[in-house]
Amino acid sequence: MERQIYLEDIPLDDAWAAFRAALDAAGLWQPLAAETVPLSEANGRVTAAAVWARLSSPHYHAAAMDGYAVRAGETVGATDGVPLEFALIEEQGSGGAGEQGSTLSPLLPRSPAPLLSATPVNTGHPLPPWANAVIMIEHVQPVTLPDGRAGIAIRAAVPPWQHVRAMGEDMVATELVLPANHRLRPVDLGALAGSGHATVSAYRRPRVAIIPTGSELVAVEAGAPEPGHIIEYNSLVLAAQVENWGGLPTRWPIVPDDLAAIRAAVLAAAADHDLILLNAGSSAGSEDYTAPVVQSLGRLLVHGVAVRPGHPVVLGMVEEMTNDELRMTNEEKKQGDEPSSFVIRHSSFVIPLIGVPGYPVSAALTGEIFVEPLLARWQGQPPHRPATLEGALTRKIVSHTGDDDYVRVVVGRVGDHVTVTPISRGAGIITSLVRADGIVRVPRFSEGHDAGASVTVHLYRDPRAIEQAIVAIGSHDLTLDLLAQFLAERHNGLRLISANVGSLGGLIALRRGEAHLGGAHLLDPATGEYNLSYIRRYLPGEEVAVVSLVGREQGWIVAPGNPLGLRDWADAARPDIRLVNRQRGAGTRVLLDYELGKLGIDPAAVRGYEREEYTHLAVAAAVASGAADAGLGIRAAARALNLDFAPLAHETYELVIPRAHYESERLQPLLALLHDSAFRAAVAAMPGYDVGGMGDVRLLTNH
Amino acid sequence: MERQIYLEDIPLDDAWAAFRAALDAAGLWQPLAAETVPLSEANGRVTAAAVWARLSSPHYHAAAMDGYAVRAGETVGATDGVPLEFALIEEQGSGGAGEQGSTLSPLLPRSPAPLLSATPVNTGHPLPPWANAVIMIEHVQPVTLPDGRAGIAIRAAVPPWQHVRAMGEDMVATELVLPANHRLRPVDLGALAGSGHATVSAYRRPRVAIIPTGSELVAVEAGAPEPGHIIEYNSLVLAAQVENWGGLPTRWPIVPDDLAAIRAAVLAAAADHDLILLNAGSSAGSEDYTAPVVQSLGRLLVHGVAVRPGHPVVLGMVEEMTNDELRMTNEEKKQGDEPSSFVIRHSSFVIPLIGVPGYPVSAALTGEIFVEPLLARWQGQPPHRPATLEGALTRKIVSHTGDDDYVRVVVGRVGDHVTVTPISRGAGIITSLVRADGIVRVPRFSEGHDAGASVTVHLYRDPRAIEQAIVAIGSHDLTLDLLAQFLAERHNGLRLISANVGSLGGLIALRRGEAHLGGAHLLDPATGEYNLSYIRRYLPGEEVAVVSLVGREQGWIVAPGNPLGLRDWADAARPDIRLVNRQRGAGTRVLLDYELGKLGIDPAAVRGYEREEYTHLAVAAAVASGAADAGLGIRAAARALNLDFAPLAHETYELVIPRAHYESERLQPLLALLHDSAFRAAVAAMPGYDVGGMGDVRLLTNH
Repeated sequence: MERQIYLEDIPLDDAWAAFRAALDAAGLWQPLAAETVPLSEANGRVTAAAVWARLSSPHYHAAAMDGYAVRAGETVGATDGVPLEFALIEEQGSGGAGEQGSTLSPLLPRSPAPLLSATPVNTGHPLPPWANAVIMIEHVQPVTLPDGRAGIAIRAAVPPWQHVRAMGEDMVATELVLPANHRLRPVDLGALAGSGHATVSAYRRPRVAIIPTGSELVAVEAGAPEPGHIIEYNSLVLAAQVENWGGLPTRWPIVPDDLAAIRAAVLAAAADHDLILLNAGSSAGSEDYTAPVVQSLGRLLVHGVAVRPGHPVVLGMVEEMTNDELRMTNEEKKQGDEPSSFVIRHSSFVIPLIGVPGYPVSAALTGEIFVEPLLARWQGQPPHRPATLEGALTRKIVSHTGDDDYVRVVVGRVGDHVTVTPISRGAGIITSLVRADGIVRVPRFSEGHDAGASVTVHLYRDPRAIEQAIVAIGSHDLTLDLLAQFLAERHNGLRLISANVGSLGGLIALRRGEAHLGGAHLLDPATGEYNLSYIRRYLPGEEVAVVSLVGREQGWIVAPGNPLGLRDWADAARPDIRLVNRQRGAGTRVLLDYELGKLGIDPAAVRGYEREEYTHLAVAAAVASGAADAGLGIRAAARALNLDFAPLAHETYELVIPRAHYESERLQPLLALLHDSAFRAAVAAMPGYDVGGMGDVRLLTNH
Repeated sequence: MERQIYLEDIPLDDAWAAFRAALDAAGLWQPLAAETVPLSEANGRVTAAAVWARLSSPHYHAAAMDGYAVRAGETVGATDGVPLEFALIEEQGSGGAGEQGSTLSPLLPRSPAPLLSATPVNTGHPLPPWANAVIMIEHVQPVTLPDGRAGIAIRAAVPPWQHVRAMGEDMVATELVLPANHRLRPVDLGALAGSGHATVSAYRRPRVAIIPTGSELVAVEAGAPEPGHIIEYNSLVLAAQVENWGGLPTRWPIVPDDLAAIRAAVLAAAADHDLILLNAGSSAGSEDYTAPVVQSLGRLLVHGVAVRPGHPVVLGMVEEMTNDELRMTNEEKKQGDEPSSFVIRHSSFVIPLIGVPGYPVSAALTGEIFVEPLLARWQGQPPHRPATLEGALTRKIVSHTGDDDYVRVVVGRVGDHVTVTPISRGAGIITSLVRADGIVRVPRFSEGHDAGASVTVHLYRDPRAIEQAIVAIGSHDLTLDLLAQFLAERHNGLRLISANVGSLGGLIALRRGEAHLGGAHLLDPATGEYNLSYIRRYLPGEEVAVVSLVGREQGWIVAPGNPLGLRDWADAARPDIRLVNRQRGAGTRVLLDYELGKLGIDPAAVRGYEREEYTHLAVAAAVASGAADAGLGIRAAARALNLDFAPLAHETYELVIPRAHYESERLQPLLALLHDSAFRAAVAAMPGYDVGGMGDVRLLTNH
């Protein structure tokens, strides 16, 4: 049954064409069956058929004001000076709160009401059939008529149909209320009810089974994992996606890498789901069972799609089960903890299966590329088309010509231009999707885009959320995380986007107009002064504010107990010590180079000098994992990972802000936080930080 | 306890200020308390606190490929010609699917692995602590070493950290994963789980009680209502709104207009809800109990807001109940059919109450104006800001200077310009919200806008849905409803927007570039010919396609059995017959005038000539309700309301389409439907219609 299966990446369009053809052939490329849904549960559902009004609304001529029903023609001639007097008569069914037994028919013969009669009505009451207008209670006066009957005095003529809601004014019976394929909104439910419907015919919601497989997986509830174990969360992401796209997800327990177990899970899921997502094992390794399982239970359509991230996608059909096989599976399932009954399908059925790759970015994008359009189709909807925005790339994108490439990007509007910055392309970096404002699609046969090129971003966020974000590009400091957090909390989600490219990279980004501010701590080897000489060099002619953020210690981040006994700059050159370094342009790197230069140490003599990390925390992580013995960084990073710290220097970390941004409304909440006592206390609580000078400003105008 | 209460409309801003001040004073103008939510239920919830990574991700150095872990430095010098041979060693915890007991610590001392060793690893496995690179399985060959041990031959050097996912590559422990006040998306759940969280702290969802009151109300499930009875659906709309805004709605059964009963319902709701929406009874009529109830149970803050539709809004606080009073109410409630237990609150509490007006448009807008911002605030979110679009008004808007006016509009893009057409302003017309593409807000102190003025529309729809709609302005025919329905069904929600302004109004709209097409059936009294002479007059120099839609009968729509025996045009002048007419510019009105003229009948002699309706169905509704004896219209409208019909004429209803639109891609699906057999059959099934000429085209080029 298991033959050798090779992964062969085919173009995305071809993969979809093959999938769609198979769905079509099975009658599955169309909306699911309709079901009757009570209106109280119909919000967000999609109409499976047009809805025509069963009743008119209003379904009778209704008074639109509290007052008196009259014949408009009889009021002609009434004036303040010569009021007309009308006799009050009670009309059956015309008044009285709480009256439940009204029997007025809309086709009553004309009433024999005497001339100059009026009947009291409240808002919503039916008009007597002889009347054609309502006069407001405020506009009449009670009188006693000459014959002793009660009456009212009217002092102005009223036009016909004044203050009357005519029958059918809103909807007329038989009119189209809503078309098919319409996603129901709150007001639609009102129109349906008002036109006489208590239920609506809506497409059934797609049921999607999500089966995580992998012997290395552990559930998120299981607590801290061992090395080699991976917290299973793709099923959480896929289930939430399915939910957002109108489907009903079922998350399966983790199935180990075992062909029979995976087969059994797929068969069980096939019994009562419309779609199966089998997560991981979709590649062609020795433990990748998705393709063999699909081949054994149906038809393998596609194994590998030329899209990055995400290429080891499997598309197939689970089909043509015999009743025997299915019953057996259901027996197995019944022995488990699933108590409910099962739908036993025909001996011949077809259920699409998507083998979702294991890397989290690949998994989420596979959801967007393959699952969303299918769920949309099953609910009579077009596939989701994200909003788009044009912007200029801040960095080159190099793309594999054979693939459709989905590049996650951060988008910022700084001054007049929209900047698009690609973020990590690793398929394992879920935070690249969390941080992404959108995706740039680099189509097959393109080699990518140059820096500065205009690209289209398919947005994950409301374009207006992008308009409002503050873009920080430069050196990283943990204080920026705290700033982002306080901004979001105090200012309803105001976002501080930070890209960590080092202090120098930040100044270059500011020169290009790509950021509102940049964090910097660049020591001038000539003067021992921080930042100013660099600003003069990289931002000539620019007026900038240099705002002190925080004072902090730099030193060796080392293993607990500092087993190798590092204590000064010269330790960098010890042959028994493997260092981890920061990238070129980082202030910390500049500091290290400055101190090595003072000591006359050749970088080539420093072990690990070439291993570069982009943040203090990444340096600490390298030390914590044993991959390096030491790295230069801030005390808080050492403390974060329970490492030790040998202090070497104190420095001030500053924010460099072009004057136009410094004075802009957008930055005021951030600047105000620097003087906020709660924020200062939170920063001061981090080890190695002092907030003495926080918020001090130097304005550089004439350089 | 009940004193006289007057409705006094105060400005919207003042109303909000008073409400907000009271909420603030009660500590309620802030997010609700946090609760711990499992990630599997956290999709769409809002973080109540920043989340910092508990684990790094990966939490160990992981192989990123199936292959062999090596020391990169030892591969230097390996070439195709001179491969290097490495001995295979098994590392504890480094391999093997399903291995559960791995105990590798990230801080293991460096391993004593011998030189030139390699260890097999699969993707995701931890790297042995001595290794720093992975070489892919495809790039080595198995060999037997000279000493007989198993080994591999390597034919190219690998750089350090090749195919390794470094610990912390995605997230480093202690890093900010998500800020507070962040609405969780599917990928966020992945990042939370990956950083070691199984739960998240999220704001509690606001619980909102919705209490419909009114003795005239009947539940939608109760079947066809009597005249004077109103189907209660505001609670459906409000509940769905609350749901969409993140709240948990509770719909109360209908409470009759009875002060004690409403009071009891409010008290019961106050026991376990955060907000009470009391629907209707918010005005100042004799049966309007909302304000008295609020006054008796707490504080009335606002009674009447100067906003249209919606002005009789009540804002108040239910507060300071004694335990005795509350217990009594709970006793009352227990005698009802509510079985569950109650939260007995402190003797002092405050629950905001919004008295929602009864007219459905007012109710829905009150939800948007008052409920949405409050629920957003309670969930740490900014209020919803709809997308906006600028467009030119096609009709004048006259506004009451004292009020903020919310005018529902239809928006269309026709050629280069965006047209904004106000629709019915009646607060009772729920379909005005169903059909609306958005709202134009006319602020207090403005008298409105002239036709042609540029206005800002606050959109209900994705701006792109508006780009795609087909705009039909002109005469109404039921076939247009069917066209809209078939278009939506066949073309994934493609919308046909139609505004019924009569045939002439349609030609004028076409001349102004406000519509893609207009339905017309205008008889030229001079020639007896349809449409052409009008098109020449109203669209001079324009190239248009005149497309035959349908042939249909015009005649008298009369009560069942035709009790007054109408049969010819002359009956219009009978003194015993009250007519209902169509508006000026309607083709049907032109036809009537033409025939009256031929007979020499003065319109002044026709009873009801001045009562105008805008559609055939509205004419039929007037007859069905007994308000008129007859009206000129099409047979299908009579049939729709079970009326009788006396045929008088046969006419062709045509679509007038400027050539540019006729040839545009947007209109092709509509034009194709005219030749679709299912569509033709559906039209032909309507009484009085023939589809013989459907789709026939006359192109008028030189007039």
